[in-house]
Amino acid sequence: MNSLNFLEIRKSIRKYKVEPISDSLLTSLFIATAQASNTGNMQLYSAVVTKNDEMKFKLAPFHFNQKMVKQAPVVVTFCADINRFNTWCSQRNAKPGFNNFLGFLTASIDAIIAAQTFCIAAETKGLGICYLGTTIYNAPELCEILELPHGVIPVTTITLGWPDEEPEISDRLPIESFVFNEKYPSIGPSEIDVWYGLKENLSANIQFTNDNAKETLAQVFTDVRYKKSDNEFFSSKLEQLLQKHWY
Amino acid sequence: MNSLNFLEIRKSIRKYKVEPISDSLLTSLFIATAQASNTGNMQLYSAVVTKNDEMKFKLAPFHFNQKMVKQAPVVVTFCADINRFNTWCSQRNAKPGFNNFLGFLTASIDAIIAAQTFCIAAETKGLGICYLGTTIYNAPELCEILELPHGVIPVTTITLGWPDEEPEISDRLPIESFVFNEKYPSIGPSEIDVWYGLKENLSANIQFTNDNAKETLAQVFTDVRYKKSDNEFFSSKLEQLLQKHWY
Repeated sequence: MNSLNFLEIRKSIRKYKVEPISDSLLTSLFIATAQASNTGNMQLYSAVVTKNDEMKFKLAPFHFNQKMVKQAPVVVTFCADINRFNTWCSQRNAKPGFNNFLGFLTASIDAIIAAQTFCIAAETKGLGICYLGTTIYNAPELCEILELPHGVIPVTTITLGWPDEEPEISDRLPIESFVFNEKYPSIGPSEIDVWYGLKENLSANIQFTNDNAKETLAQVFTDVRYKKSDNEFFSSKLEQLLQKHWY
Repeated sequence: MNSLNFLEIRKSIRKYKVEPISDSLLTSLFIATAQASNTGNMQLYSAVVTKNDEMKFKLAPFHFNQKMVKQAPVVVTFCADINRFNTWCSQRNAKPGFNNFLGFLTASIDAIIAAQTFCIAAETKGLGICYLGTTIYNAPELCEILELPHGVIPVTTITLGWPDEEPEISDRLPIESFVFNEKYPSIGPSEIDVWYGLKENLSANIQFTNDNAKETLAQVFTDVRYKKSDNEFFSSKLEQLLQKHWY
């Protein structure tokens, strides 16, 4: 029985060596990615690979200038994609019907399954990866830069390179807080205290809360990192993109 | 350098032995899953494990009675989940803001990254998996059966068991059809013919097209398997669920 250790000890890597990633290695990651599950074997996704510095500099501001974008030798934008499928259909006298919300979610699921398979393949080869959640905040601008046609919307971005840091393994909630048997349970104050207590008492998180001048760690998430007003702004921007670029 | 062979030779498994999956093995899969990337370490997902036959019989019709649901020893429904995070926030004097479209997509991405990590962990242990795309078609009914509260929406389901079949490795589109360098290319008729020709000429697909009395393989997808009218129906159902159960 093979060990799951490679998944248990993984961590996101945000600092990379200058050393490039060979084309053959990158291709092998995508070959492994291709065999991942996808909806009805339609493969409603695509990936745009950025290696060119000029392109990285164009992308970076829309990822809030996270330093990994310019520093990583390879940046990969994974997209929900019905353009290729629709083009095939139009050449084969078939009328596709994924230009709706279900179609977008279906294609996004395909894109994320592919992205995570790509990440695990990369980590298996000793590479380090980091997901950029900013992709869905600034999807319209990324569409322009990467020249994504109608029916192609970026859903996540991976920065990729040879690790130049050794971070600690990240804390996670206990299994019993997110895996439930048969039915979803009611969650009361005592469960919350137990599940989040470990995280709240980590010295790094106490420091993080103090540095942000907040009473609680939760407030750092809601008032600093993921503000309701920001989420609503990006939400509306993304819905407008769907109207124009998918439906 | 570790080989990527375990990813390259994988295939979805739809027939399982009666042999159960031990609790300790299942727990080890979730421990591996937990270390996967997620948004801001908020882990906006949860998983509901179905082992009980009565529950499998309740779920099955909403997965179009695909036989794996009743036959698999374990069925896992992965959910986008802001309920736990919101409950934590409300106990910590913090006001969360993920009850919008961006929040749903963010949590869905977390759920799918977790689901795919779980699948790769399972396959590493010799288990077979199959994704059920039906989850997002009948999410409202699954919410009721699994007693998912407001802020928890199922996005995919995995059936899991010891393989009792050895299918062929599934065909996939060539890498150059879904991996692009720097910018998305224009896709013309000759690219489509090359990219889809291999798939169209597989004897199983020729048979499949004939069995369905269609002119082209693409028409099997658009007229039989994923009809526009069905997609639109499920799309509207899912949007209504978001209005009621997430926003």
